[in-house]
Amino acid sequence: MPNESIYYLGDTARVPYGGKSATTVQRYSLEIAGMLLEENAKTVVVACNTASALALSPLTENLPVTVTGVILPGAQAAIAATRTGHIGVIGTRATIHSGAYERALHSLHPSVRVTTRACPLLVPLIEEGWLQTAITDQIITQYIGPLVDDGIDTLVLGCTHYPLLRTAIARLLGDTIALVDSAQNCANAVRDLLIRENLSALETSAGSLQVALTDRPDSFLRVAREALNLDVGEVQLREIIPHAP
Amino acid sequence: MPNESIYYLGDTARVPYGGKSATTVQRYSLEIAGMLLEENAKTVVVACNTASALALSPLTENLPVTVTGVILPGAQAAIAATRTGHIGVIGTRATIHSGAYERALHSLHPSVRVTTRACPLLVPLIEEGWLQTAITDQIITQYIGPLVDDGIDTLVLGCTHYPLLRTAIARLLGDTIALVDSAQNCANAVRDLLIRENLSALETSAGSLQVALTDRPDSFLRVAREALNLDVGEVQLREIIPHAP
Repeated sequence: MPNESIYYLGDTARVPYGGKSATTVQRYSLEIAGMLLEENAKTVVVACNTASALALSPLTENLPVTVTGVILPGAQAAIAATRTGHIGVIGTRATIHSGAYERALHSLHPSVRVTTRACPLLVPLIEEGWLQTAITDQIITQYIGPLVDDGIDTLVLGCTHYPLLRTAIARLLGDTIALVDSAQNCANAVRDLLIRENLSALETSAGSLQVALTDRPDSFLRVAREALNLDVGEVQLREIIPHAP
Repeated sequence: MPNESIYYLGDTARVPYGGKSATTVQRYSLEIAGMLLEENAKTVVVACNTASALALSPLTENLPVTVTGVILPGAQAAIAATRTGHIGVIGTRATIHSGAYERALHSLHPSVRVTTRACPLLVPLIEEGWLQTAITDQIITQYIGPLVDDGIDTLVLGCTHYPLLRTAIARLLGDTIALVDSAQNCANAVRDLLIRENLSALETSAGSLQVALTDRPDSFLRVAREALNLDVGEVQLREIIPHAP
């Protein structure tokens, strides 16, 4: 969607969301979504698994625009990839405990077997930039080894940070286990939605990317920039606008 | 101080502070301190190295009561322990980058040599409950090994989580490097302050501990309970009151 203008808002003042309660994640998600609406967002993408798992319903109910989460696209990618019907899911504590992936996967295919594991150290590891170290490999083995032993044939990276560990995780999984994330399917879902709702940008529009954060960019921005090979341009610093309950 | 009543407020809705900017840590600290004043706190202890490092001045300027941080007590413990005058300090990214320990140590003893290291993975490791694992030992070696090689004779645990890793860290340090934290010295400083200000509780008072959090207690409470061997009783859930700028 090269013609679309994307306003990306990262709540760095309050991350990580992955260990917080549903109530708090919902309040924070509504606040961040409100700030996106102020930027005249025509649709909102919840580009975070924890917020998608815990806050998609309140966001959908409260926002005047369409909302797309990353859980369903990730589940679709997993259903497309599995042959044996045994799918593993890794994510933050909040995502895994919510049961959102099991619900999404079973809504798409009631008989698939789902084995999940919360991996709370992976986000801090990635933010430390230890993407390819022996310690990282051991932590990955500690978390994911039991899923491999349990016979999964597909692993969902149920956290938007985890693709930065794709190489290290793939090393453990070998050739026989498929590794899927929600990114491509989520982008497809948004494109289809814009077409369906007649909201696509004109082909003559110059698309853009504006990155904004609620706290000063820290060293993670460097990691992200290098790992994603993405020029995020000038980063805006935004104050959080509290959500009126 | 068994006669004192302690109101402990943990900002679990927004932790960890260790990777956030000074501006954000200052705003959050003022908000939390305001909530303590509402509980009629007669003095405030900033029982967090990051908040002490970044927000002690604004807290001291803005609060109508005395404020005690943990950096100076930790620095005093280190000065008392060192023989060679080469002190290591580990802490969060924000604490280490603030330079607060160097300033405190040099204010007490201008000629000590200070070598610091930010250890952003230690807090998540502790919250995951991996206090005594081979992976934990390797991460500790990765972070602290260079300080040992550099010849420190004293190591300051510059984060209030780190004492939970004391056994694992001591294993790396051996018998020749002293391990100090601010807890005992901070408690002594508060006791002296209460006596000096004539604020001590009566010896007939029944002391108490009330623990409150800004987000639902997660699994870390179990780790803390077991590791500290502390009965925290019924935990209050408090909503954050935004700070008027």
